[in-house]
Amino acid sequence: MPYVTVKMLEGRTEDQKRALVEKVTAAVSETVDAPPENVVVFIEDMKKSNLGKNGKLQSDA
Amino acid sequence: MPYVTVKMLEGRTEDQKRALVEKVTAAVSETVDAPPENVVVFIEDMKKSNLGKNGKLQSDA
Amino acid sequence: MPYVTVKMLEGRTEDQKRALVEKVTAAVSETVDAPPENVVVFIEDMKKSNLGKNGKLQSDA
Amino acid sequence: MPYVTVKMLEGRTEDQKRALVEKVTAAVSETVDAPPENVVVFIEDMKKSNLGKNGKLQSDA
Amino acid sequence: MPYVTVKMLEGRTEDQKRALVEKVTAAVSETVDAPPENVVVFIEDMKKSNLGKNGKLQSDA
Amino acid sequence: MPYVTVKMLEGRTEDQKRALVEKVTAAVSETVDAPPENVVVFIEDMKKSNLGKNGKLQSDA
Repeated sequence: MPYVTVKMLEGRTEDQKRALVEKVTAAVSETVDAPPENVVVFIEDMKKSNLGKNGKLQSDA
Repeated sequence: MPYVTVKMLEGRTEDQKRALVEKVTAAVSETVDAPPENVVVFIEDMKKSNLGKNGKLQSDA
Repeated sequence: MPYVTVKMLEGRTEDQKRALVEKVTAAVSETVDAPPENVVVFIEDMKKSNLGKNGKLQSDA
Repeated sequence: MPYVTVKMLEGRTEDQKRALVEKVTAAVSETVDAPPENVVVFIEDMKKSNLGKNGKLQSDA
Repeated sequence: MPYVTVKMLEGRTEDQKRALVEKVTAAVSETVDAPPENVVVFIEDMKKSNLGKNGKLQSDA
Repeated sequence: MPYVTVKMLEGRTEDQKRALVEKVTAAVSETVDAPPENVVVFIEDMKKSNLGKNGKLQSDA
């Protein structure tokens, strides 16, 4: 606790995910007063063909 | 805003997803008075082996 | 199946939610070829103080 | 109803998932007084490179 | 890990939730070979006016 | 995009949430190369009586 989910388009490298987990954990820990060892981060990769905005599938955009 | 997630069994075509995003965005926009450009749709594809009903895995059903 | 979640700012009336469920169920049913009796819709109400965009809490915006 | 989501690291066999769905459905059904035919279980498989704890990506741990 | 979410209509007592957490944790732990101290259960209470089936809001059903 | 959800025990102040949104948005933006105006943060408050760990409801812990 806290549990953080980051949903984003696929294609990020493992280096980017490593940095994301490190920086987001620090940001959560310092602002809501939770020890970093309790912060869990889930990353969810989305395909463009599974995302729609303004009525349009993003694989068409 | 609003953010809509549609979770369904995998196997739909990109044409079906395109129509889904278009029609769901229109339905949400007109009923809750939100401009279509603010409506986001996430599609999540499930495998039958990751879905259970009545205690049974659907890949067995 | 499908399972649809609509997350939006609180304050919609029960009439708006009734229309939302009716229209979204029809939109999903006709586009992905699922019988309407299998479509489930979950509505999630968000407070403005629980939503952030561009680094700003929306209760301040 | 109820709708149960189990998020876990990938790598479980279909036999484990079959047992999970059977036992979790029974546990939910008996404790909250819901008929088993109304219990739906979604399984979500996570990659280690999409999970962070204590600021560290679990594919590095 | 695993992380379990149980979404159900509101109105369950704390005793029912206590039993739910105990039994679901045991069911998950024994079937996917995870120590019970790693199993986290989130309960989400839904209002009937936030649930739709077959195009109908359940507060009307 | 990205969409970030932070689930945590209730009781944080609006000041803590304001800081959380600001710092998490910056952390996500700089690590995955997304403009801050595209980062959305959802906060979900949990009751202790809706959270279980190691088979125990946290309102009892």
